[in-house]
Amino acid sequence: MNEPATAIEAAVAASPLHQLKDELDIVIPTIRNLDFLEMWRPFLQPYHLIIVQDGDPSKTIKVPNGFDYELYNRNDIKRILGPKASCISFKDSACRCFGYMVSKKKYIFTIDDDCFVAKDPSGKAINALEQHIKNLLSPSTPFFFNTLYDPFAEGADFVRGYPFSLREGVSTAVSHGLWLNIPDYDAPTQLVKPLERNTRFVDAVLTIPKGTLFPMCGMNLAFDRQLIGPAMYFGLMGEGQPIGRYDDMWAGWCIKVICDHLGLGVKTGLPYIYHSKASNPFVNLRKEYKGIYWQEDIIPFFQQVVLPKDCTTVQKCYIELAKQVKEKLGKIDPYFDKLADAMVTWIQAWDGLNPTSASFSNGKTG
Amino acid sequence: MNEPATAIEAAVAASPLHQLKDELDIVIPTIRNLDFLEMWRPFLQPYHLIIVQDGDPSKTIKVPNGFDYELYNRNDIKRILGPKASCISFKDSACRCFGYMVSKKKYIFTIDDDCFVAKDPSGKAINALEQHIKNLLSPSTPFFFNTLYDPFAEGADFVRGYPFSLREGVSTAVSHGLWLNIPDYDAPTQLVKPLERNTRFVDAVLTIPKGTLFPMCGMNLAFDRQLIGPAMYFGLMGEGQPIGRYDDMWAGWCIKVICDHLGLGVKTGLPYIYHSKASNPFVNLRKEYKGIYWQEDIIPFFQQVVLPKDCTTVQKCYIELAKQVKEKLGKIDPYFDKLADAMVTWIQAWDGLNPTSASFSNGKTG
Repeated sequence: MNEPATAIEAAVAASPLHQLKDELDIVIPTIRNLDFLEMWRPFLQPYHLIIVQDGDPSKTIKVPNGFDYELYNRNDIKRILGPKASCISFKDSACRCFGYMVSKKKYIFTIDDDCFVAKDPSGKAINALEQHIKNLLSPSTPFFFNTLYDPFAEGADFVRGYPFSLREGVSTAVSHGLWLNIPDYDAPTQLVKPLERNTRFVDAVLTIPKGTLFPMCGMNLAFDRQLIGPAMYFGLMGEGQPIGRYDDMWAGWCIKVICDHLGLGVKTGLPYIYHSKASNPFVNLRKEYKGIYWQEDIIPFFQQVVLPKDCTTVQKCYIELAKQVKEKLGKIDPYFDKLADAMVTWIQAWDGLNPTSASFSNGKTG
Repeated sequence: MNEPATAIEAAVAASPLHQLKDELDIVIPTIRNLDFLEMWRPFLQPYHLIIVQDGDPSKTIKVPNGFDYELYNRNDIKRILGPKASCISFKDSACRCFGYMVSKKKYIFTIDDDCFVAKDPSGKAINALEQHIKNLLSPSTPFFFNTLYDPFAEGADFVRGYPFSLREGVSTAVSHGLWLNIPDYDAPTQLVKPLERNTRFVDAVLTIPKGTLFPMCGMNLAFDRQLIGPAMYFGLMGEGQPIGRYDDMWAGWCIKVICDHLGLGVKTGLPYIYHSKASNPFVNLRKEYKGIYWQEDIIPFFQQVVLPKDCTTVQKCYIELAKQVKEKLGKIDPYFDKLADAMVTWIQAWDGLNPTSASFSNGKTG
């Protein structure tokens, strides 16, 4: 880093966003010691960590000194959820969504353990969490496209021709950040372009328009648990399942149709993290190949899904979505029957751990 | 400029895109001498210019030496179109669309005479036209959002989770460029933020998703005449009309719903031009105020418009749109009756000057 850690710490502490430390948890799924946190220390140390340990529960995960954390392994998940633990994936980073469920905070930031602090074009270390918080605390504009991107960014505004009635925007539920260095490619693209690196720093945040789906990556993601938490389920992946690496995609499709229905916003763009390590494309291909095939049917399904007007809470939307998944996607493969059941179990487990949120309504439907 | 003009000329001449000089016209609406072209000389001199002189036809417009051009004033427009000249606006830059009609080329680039060559963050002069051509010659991806922006840009691709069946993309009909320095704000925003300048260089091109409208600015715009030309009508503005500064907005709404229907793409982002001069916000407010009010009804109209399956050409789509404008927007103000009639006149005039294009079909409808 160009700046000494103490200077960054001082800047972080002085930031008004620092106050969110009591309202935000950082969720990290891992199978190894969390040495990567050393580089994040100046930005993340004020926050509480929820570590979801995947794989062998007897293994000890070392967390660098000075971080405040709670850690859950497979045994903890089974103890806390009982038979409902079946909805939490094992041997796949999809297990991270257990952390969303046990958190009691308003906001979640989740990050992979092979992600490091990126630098902006001037060489300054990027405080990814601060940018996510900015994204979540400012409105989204899903109903009309603003050609100068985020109208709430410094030095920007709505351009000529943007309807004034839409300038108030809507609450932002999700902030999807990007990756410098190793791009988030599927196995076929990794195989074809093994040396491709992302070096393009695009200085923009934008709202993904209503009615448009996107591929949501779980590597560098923040969201408002109160607004969308119960839909942030990462599905059934990994051990015992026919598919992997579609956990975040599944969540992305679900949250987008629910945000569109409830009139909530989803942003993508800044902040960047530095993604250090490409996963093995051969292993990835084995995990992905059914998803690559199935998504050709899944995406048209999500593009056409309609949620009834009486679905006024995230939970109601999600249960309705589970029903439609069973009806429409069950034909593709029995896996989708099982997934639809797991979606219902997930909501039951969520409501069990979050009893007051079950009746929470987001107000108007869109 | 940091580079000598000769070096730029050499680079331009060496570019494979240079060959489009026989397939692209540059349309410039103006009321003054075109001194601004001096700065553009290395980039634009190989191309043919169509200058549409607005205002007093007896005035002489000086064009810098060495440019190949044809110039049309109001008398020429009347002579060529006869009574149909009524569809071409007077005393408003909307008159530029006459240039689209008389062109015989496949592509159009249109630029305002207060736009200059911008520099990228490294200080290099931006060849705006070259970027527009790249945008038009590479496919668009309107059916699903790619989080790393244009997947056809160098060093980029489709990210994990992007459906393979959609990666071929669709033909690009429109390339909408942006502006550094003076942003394209409406009069109220100009009044509130007189000193705001756009200094943010966003290094991205993206497809505006299907079903999403955007505010199209005519200042720095390129399009494929064969694919979308007959819909690029800038409406009735200026002298004798109750409204101004909505010419490009009108065209933008129309082309977007027609591109969505015909399965064509619209891109926005790069290239930037340097916009030097803010127009007078008080004058703008007078021109705009009805538009600011009316757009609150117009935009929902365009968001809901459905074109029938048998509208398989741009002309058929446009005539149908004119019909629906008359039916649905005529209630707002008699102006929209007149505009709907002018839309039909425009298509008649277009087909008169472009007899072979009338039967041109874009193929599949979306």
